Amino acid sequence: MEQVKVLLNESDMPRRWYNIQSDMPTPLAPPFHPATMEIATPEQMHVIFPMALLEQEMSPAPYFDIPEEVMQVLALWRPTPLMRARRFEKALGTPAHIYFKNESVSPAGSHKPNTAVPQAFYNKQEGIRRIATETGAGQWGSAMSLACKFFGLDCRVYMVRVSYDQKPYRKSMIHTWGAEIFPSPSDQTNAGRAVLAQDPNHPGSLGIAISEAVEDAVSHEDTNYSLGSVLAHVCLHQTIIGEEAIRQMKVLGEKPDVVIGCIGGGSNFAGISFPYVREKINGMDVRILAVEPASCPTVTKGVYAYDYGDTAHMAPIVQMHTLGHTFIPPGIHAGGLRYHGMSPLVSRLYEDKLIEAIAVPQLECFEAGVLFARTEGIVPAPETTHAIRGAVIEAMKAKEEGKEKVILFNFSGHGHFDMSAYDAYLAGQLSNYEYPQKLVEEALTHLPHVTLPAM
Amino acid sequence: MEQVKVLLNESDMPRRWYNIQSDMPTPLAPPFHPATMEIATPEQMHVIFPMALLEQEMSPAPYFDIPEEVMQVLALWRPTPLMRARRFEKALGTPAHIYFKNESVSPAGSHKPNTAVPQAFYNKQEGIRRIATETGAGQWGSAMSLACKFFGLDCRVYMVRVSYDQKPYRKSMIHTWGAEIFPSPSDQTNAGRAVLAQDPNHPGSLGIAISEAVEDAVSHEDTNYSLGSVLAHVCLHQTIIGEEAIRQMKVLGEKPDVVIGCIGGGSNFAGISFPYVREKINGMDVRILAVEPASCPTVTKGVYAYDYGDTAHMAPIVQMHTLGHTFIPPGIHAGGLRYHGMSPLVSRLYEDKLIEAIAVPQLECFEAGVLFARTEGIVPAPETTHAIRGAVIEAMKAKEEGKEKVILFNFSGHGHFDMSAYDAYLAGQLSNYEYPQKLVEEALTHLPHVTLPAM
Repeated sequence: MEQVKVLLNESDMPRRWYNIQSDMPTPLAPPFHPATMEIATPEQMHVIFPMALLEQEMSPAPYFDIPEEVMQVLALWRPTPLMRARRFEKALGTPAHIYFKNESVSPAGSHKPNTAVPQAFYNKQEGIRRIATETGAGQWGSAMSLACKFFGLDCRVYMVRVSYDQKPYRKSMIHTWGAEIFPSPSDQTNAGRAVLAQDPNHPGSLGIAISEAVEDAVSHEDTNYSLGSVLAHVCLHQTIIGEEAIRQMKVLGEKPDVVIGCIGGGSNFAGISFPYVREKINGMDVRILAVEPASCPTVTKGVYAYDYGDTAHMAPIVQMHTLGHTFIPPGIHAGGLRYHGMSPLVSRLYEDKLIEAIAVPQLECFEAGVLFARTEGIVPAPETTHAIRGAVIEAMKAKEEGKEKVILFNFSGHGHFDMSAYDAYLAGQLSNYEYPQKLVEEALTHLPHVTLPAM
Repeated sequence: MEQVKVLLNESDMPRRWYNIQSDMPTPLAPPFHPATMEIATPEQMHVIFPMALLEQEMSPAPYFDIPEEVMQVLALWRPTPLMRARRFEKALGTPAHIYFKNESVSPAGSHKPNTAVPQAFYNKQEGIRRIATETGAGQWGSAMSLACKFFGLDCRVYMVRVSYDQKPYRKSMIHTWGAEIFPSPSDQTNAGRAVLAQDPNHPGSLGIAISEAVEDAVSHEDTNYSLGSVLAHVCLHQTIIGEEAIRQMKVLGEKPDVVIGCIGGGSNFAGISFPYVREKINGMDVRILAVEPASCPTVTKGVYAYDYGDTAHMAPIVQMHTLGHTFIPPGIHAGGLRYHGMSPLVSRLYEDKLIEAIAVPQLECFEAGVLFARTEGIVPAPETTHAIRGAVIEAMKAKEEGKEKVILFNFSGHGHFDMSAYDAYLAGQLSNYEYPQKLVEEALTHLPHVTLPAM
């Protein structure tokens, strides 16, 4: 029988997270406080984050031990399988070996619980009783609801309205795990009410939902804010994906020529790729490819600059690729990729040419996703179809070149709560949004001006 | 770290299915043909089933080798994990060890692909080009669509209308895998049109949907019928669940005191339990418990008699527990358990006191399901909550008795496509249907009369 997967036992789970900051050729520029426009201090950020996460956010330490209590929860679904997509390869007629790390097996259906669980744990440890957070397509909101329930925290989720309407059963899942959820913009915060006053039918955006959640956290003593992507500690927690993948590829005696992930805020890509970036820095011959939506092409078309993380200027100002914090991306079904900014770590690695990026249109992604579902079985989340599309592009290149290339991509989540997107695609109702160049140009005129002090 | 799961590698997957017919103290009585009212011959049943499956249906052979092509597909998700529900145990405060076999990890989300894949394979081998089938809650229709796509067969699914309306994204999933789906009763068959003529808003039932699918198969030369439960070959294919579980429990050095599954047609229960029935016959001290819905209590309140498998008298007449083929069960959310009959194998084992059965009300099942979701993470299908409820009953008995009992149940599927049921439950909109005794009494007056020839 041809082998199609490599499993690891829970006793073989990595016990440390890898911190890419320890190996980056260029360190991150510091975040600025949106009110003072000065470099943000840990004490300022402590209003919404626990110290343990802020330490991880700023530390140059190469590794952090995963707490026992976190390991015990992650073991409910980790280590995740590394799968070889043999049937997908055959359908493509490619000589490439296509592997995927199946993060869809978590109870929430994606990689997101990998960081939701430690975030809930550290908040609980510091006496926090309630978490406010936002979610795009619902993957993160589900994950945080689940993690909060595991550690006995209350949880409120602000979900981008267009996704809230597209994916009604994310709400049901979040309720089942005992959390609250509101469509964003909501009437629950000043930030939300201000947007609704201008446009009662506003589709929402991650930037607005972040503003609402941060405001909620700032205005409740017992509440912290929690972010599902972008930040360094989030990327840190996700590196367990890549660390497992490295072990699993070793079991097979295979070495990836290219490692692929989709990017919205950057965390699932960081998870699969940062351990490989470490290997690359240490001499491994491997390409690392981020895939973003053509309608929200933050890295490939945005500028590398300081910008706000949210629309209402509540979140820190960070140096990253951005399309401008006032830019509202088109309502593509990959709601998790509809973010104007990018993880500062991913942005920095791109600037330093350690990683590559491409932008792909929605229809080609769904086409790849449906082929994947019909050959390998699992129905991918719309976000994940971007990574699959990236793998197809690399596999077809390998076919042209007649090369037995090894491709590894992160299967970040399943699409069980995104089926209306497949309905629309199969009915021929989806189109490829044009890149909204004018909107981006306008948004980029609103970047904040911050000045780094002389060293 | 406390161990929470046992994985097996695909090389350790069982290579044979176990045929309980080889060990049953009382053999099955023969099926009758619904038109001739005589014992049905394999040739007659060959009109809708491939010979390979009919051989498995009637054989006394103890084992059947799993074909290589089938193994290769099953390996996409098998062997499935055996999990210890430690967090659920703690929430119940029970000294019992609660294990579950996680069949929700298949691409279709349940145990159903275990038999859909070999059924598609054997049909393909005999030159069939198209499959017609029915589905209750959608688990089986999804599984058969997926399996047909794997082997290049066309597929049409008739889905019970009440479930079709409750679970709209099952349709989307079935479309994504390239199959057709119609709500049943439909206007596509004589059987469906006859029901619609009497009641255009008929909620449908598995019995009606079976009639439609069988009629479709009989009236198309290139089409066979495929059933997702009840029949012996279906139960045979599902035994891979129990065979894996036995190996996994051995790895742990544990022996179950009670093995639990929910029953609608009986196949997931058969899957986990028949290998344990074999062990019991060979001396193992183990109880085997089937859990059915109180509103459709086929085994605990039905009669053991010959009855039609469907409403329109298209399917064979078999000896089983039945509430009468004209009985339409209340529209509970566990649509997969809304069947008037029961697997003849399960029925026979119950009559021979090798297995036990209980009936449980809907609300207690959802209560158990939500507690499970909030402790172990995975949201169970409404059907599966019946098995969980059974485990809770046994765990609470163990608590009363202060015994460290070992409980094993089959987690037959996840509830990602059943979230409207959770919405209704959490909103307090669900009730416990009363057992519809009068309807059953009426239905039982319509049993067919067949005469077994003198031996």
